[in-house]
Amino acid sequence: MSFSPLIQDLIEAFRCLPGVGPKTAQRMAFHLLERDRDGAEHLSQALVAAAEKVGHCSRCRTLSEAELCEICSDTRRDVDKLCVLESPVDMLAVEQTGGFNGGYFVLMGHLSPIDGIGPDDLGLDKLFERLESSQISELILATNPTVEGEATAHFIAEQIKHLDIKVTRIAHGVPVGGELEYVDGGTLAHALAGRRALN
Amino acid sequence: MSFSPLIQDLIEAFRCLPGVGPKTAQRMAFHLLERDRDGAEHLSQALVAAAEKVGHCSRCRTLSEAELCEICSDTRRDVDKLCVLESPVDMLAVEQTGGFNGGYFVLMGHLSPIDGIGPDDLGLDKLFERLESSQISELILATNPTVEGEATAHFIAEQIKHLDIKVTRIAHGVPVGGELEYVDGGTLAHALAGRRALN
Ligand SMILES: [Zn+2]
Ligand SMILES: [Zn+2]
Repeated sequence: MSFSPLIQDLIEAFRCLPGVGPKTAQRMAFHLLERDRDGAEHLSQALVAAAEKVGHCSRCRTLSEAELCEICSDTRRDVDKLCVLESPVDMLAVEQTGGFNGGYFVLMGHLSPIDGIGPDDLGLDKLFERLESSQISELILATNPTVEGEATAHFIAEQIKHLDIKVTRIAHGVPVGGELEYVDGGTLAHALAGRRALN
Repeated sequence: MSFSPLIQDLIEAFRCLPGVGPKTAQRMAFHLLERDRDGAEHLSQALVAAAEKVGHCSRCRTLSEAELCEICSDTRRDVDKLCVLESPVDMLAVEQTGGFNGGYFVLMGHLSPIDGIGPDDLGLDKLFERLESSQISELILATNPTVEGEATAHFIAEQIKHLDIKVTRIAHGVPVGGELEYVDGGTLAHALAGRRALN
């Protein structure tokens, strides 16, 4: 016996979510069908709208359906500081510390030769262009303190050493091997305050 | 700072899933947007198709988009045994034991006066009609071994004691307070084989 085709397909479809195995997918499908069809319709509409319309901010590369994201279109931000991050959730984490009011550049990943992810995939050409054509005085490399994040930070620092820009790296407080997304606000604020020059 | 409206809405929409808090919802949204938009579109379509088309089997009440579910439309099943269950996943669990070849009736819940769930909400009128108009010789009450499941089983047994039907309750092996869905196949097969008469 198997469930009817539409139920089987729904269970299978839930498997695209991170950390969702067969049993959890089954629970999700039956929960919605038995108790929350409005929730299912809302989720369906939210998924298709986001998948079709969310692109990247043309300035910082974070995920956004607008041409310019909320922060890039905010004229009250400091234009002399730029913070480089691996992902959009890291941007939220840094914003929540309240300790930074500059601009951002989101790599949407890190250098990973094994996976074929090189400088172009991270939009580094765009980053370097922005650094050369603006009045940025400090570049804060806030990639994750992992092997790949460190390598990415050092690659960027190396590429722009001819520019008159202070390059710093967040340091104190961020656990080695950890991911920014899971660091508490206090620790991250400390790491930002204790950033050190890489050049 | 907040994420763009479509991303915020997607994160919020994931909260309708059981066991999904704000952080998990955020992970799910970004995973799909960054790495699996095809998965998001597939999930969206599966959700809307299931929410719109899956109803109840007209005979056993399990969830199905067909008028009759797979089992109710299978003419090779024993017509003299009927197994009463709380939910469609319990039906799969019993089928997987391979120890039962009769029909099913799915309550889609259990009696719960506190939540206002009475006999009508479980389709018991339909169950009693079916018992009176067919050649069923044994009714197996396989509701969960919880307080509500036991109360529901006893209520059903009481209502049909005027009929010449053997009423049994699955017994041995099912942990008290547990749910059928999470019982391993061997335990459930044992519970079925060791069923005892309630009347
Ligand atoms: Zn932006
Ligand atoms: Zn059926």
